[in-house]
Amino acid sequence: MMTLKRHLLLISNSTLHGGGYLEHCQEQIQKFLGEQVKRVLFVPYALHDRDDYARTARKKFESLGYGLDSIHEAADPVEAVQKSEAIFIGGGNTFRLLKTLYDNGLIPVIRKRIFEDGIPYIGSSAGTNVATISINTTNDMPIVYPPSLQALGLVPFNINPHYLDSDANSKHMGETREQRISQYHEELDTPPVLGLREGCILLVEGNKAKLLGITKARLFLRGQAPTEHDPGHDFSFLLDQ
Amino acid sequence: MMTLKRHLLLISNSTLHGGGYLEHCQEQIQKFLGEQVKRVLFVPYALHDRDDYARTARKKFESLGYGLDSIHEAADPVEAVQKSEAIFIGGGNTFRLLKTLYDNGLIPVIRKRIFEDGIPYIGSSAGTNVATISINTTNDMPIVYPPSLQALGLVPFNINPHYLDSDANSKHMGETREQRISQYHEELDTPPVLGLREGCILLVEGNKAKLLGITKARLFLRGQAPTEHDPGHDFSFLLDQ
Ligand SMILES: [Ca+2]
Ligand SMILES: [Ca+2]
Repeated sequence: MMTLKRHLLLISNSTLHGGGYLEHCQEQIQKFLGEQVKRVLFVPYALHDRDDYARTARKKFESLGYGLDSIHEAADPVEAVQKSEAIFIGGGNTFRLLKTLYDNGLIPVIRKRIFEDGIPYIGSSAGTNVATISINTTNDMPIVYPPSLQALGLVPFNINPHYLDSDANSKHMGETREQRISQYHEELDTPPVLGLREGCILLVEGNKAKLLGITKARLFLRGQAPTEHDPGHDFSFLLDQ
Repeated sequence: MMTLKRHLLLISNSTLHGGGYLEHCQEQIQKFLGEQVKRVLFVPYALHDRDDYARTARKKFESLGYGLDSIHEAADPVEAVQKSEAIFIGGGNTFRLLKTLYDNGLIPVIRKRIFEDGIPYIGSSAGTNVATISINTTNDMPIVYPPSLQALGLVPFNINPHYLDSDANSKHMGETREQRISQYHEELDTPPVLGLREGCILLVEGNKAKLLGITKARLFLRGQAPTEHDPGHDFSFLLDQ
C-alpha cells in the first residue's frame, strides 16, 4: 500500500465543558502544526455569523503563535485553498458546511492539497464529519440540502463526533446515539463508524491513525458488537478500506 | 380561503415512557378514525424490519377495532394508497422513510388522497415529519440520501417531534434542540417550527389545527422568541401560509 501524504487532526468537539474554545486540544494542535506552518486557513462555513466565528478562531490561533486567514474574506476561495499552508474547518451545522463546500467548488481542491501536497488539516465537530467519507453520521439537523452526503473522503470511514452514551435514567424515547448508528449499519455496504466522545481526537499521519485525547472512543463495525478503545489506541486498520 | 379536505393526526412519539406502543394516543386515534374507517394502510418504511413493524402495528390497531394492511405486503404500493381508507405512517428513521416514499412514487398519490379525497392520515414521529412541508427539522441521522428534503406538505410548516428541553446540568457540548432549530431559522424564508414534546399530538381538520395530548408545545417563528402553548391551543394560524 502506498503511503499517502495525509496529515489530519480530527477533533470531536471544539469546546470541552468548563474549558475555553479549543483549549482541551491546543497542545495537540501546536504539536500537529509544528513550527513550519505560519498561517492557517480557517473555514467558518458551518456557522451563520462568519465574521464573529473568524474572530474567535483568529484569537485562539494567534495565542498559539499562528496567523489565521478566514476563507470567507478571500476574493477567491479556491485560490485561498491553493495557497494555504494548513486548513482548519470548524464546527457548527454539518449540512450547511458541506453544502457551502460544494457551492464554492472546494471539495476537489481541498482533497488535492491534503493527498498530493500533504498540507495539514484540522477538523473539529462538523469539520471532522466533512473530513470523512460522508456526513451520514452527523448529529446535526438537515437545515439545508447539500448536493450529496459524500464529503471530502480524507478517511474511508465515518466518524460520529460528540458521541454520547445513552442515559439509563432518561424518560426520553427518541433513539439513542447507538441506535441511530445501528440504523445506519442496517443499510448495505456501510463503512465503520468511529464514535468520538467529547475529549477524543484522532490523529492520522499517512497510513497510521491513533486516538489522542482524554476519553474513550466507541467503534461500530457493520454486523458486529461495538467495542471500546482507550486513548493511544491504534486505529490504522480503519484506513485499509 | 377554501376549506381543504384534510384530516391529520400528527403524533410526536409512538411510545411514551412507561407505556405501550401508541397507548398514550389510542383514544385520540379511535376518535379521529371514527366508526366509518374499517381498515388502515400502514407504512413501515422508517424501520428496517418491516414484517416485525407491521406485526406490532397490526396488533395495536386490531385491539382498537381496525384491520391493518401493511403497504410493504402490497404488490403495488401506489394502488394500495389509492384503495386505502386511512393511512398511518409510523416512526423510525425519517431519511429512510422519505427516500422510500420517493422511490416508490408515493408522494403525489398520498397528497391526492389527503387533499382531494379527504382520507384520514395518522403520522407518528418520522411519520409526522414527512407530513409537513419538509424534513429539515427531523432529529434523525441522515443514514440515506433522499432526492429532496421536501416532504408530503400536508401542512405548510415544520414540526420537530420528540422536542426536548435543554438540560441545564448537562456537560455535553453538542447543540441543544433549540439551538438546532434556531440555526434552521438563520436560513432565509424558513417556515415556523412547532416543537412537539413527547406526549403532544396535533389535530388538523381542514383549516383548523389544535394541540391535543398532555404536554406543552414550543413554537419557533423565524426572528422571534419561542413561545409555549398548552394542550387545547388553537394553532390554525399556522395553516395560513
Ligand atoms: Ca454541530
Ligand atoms: Ca426517529
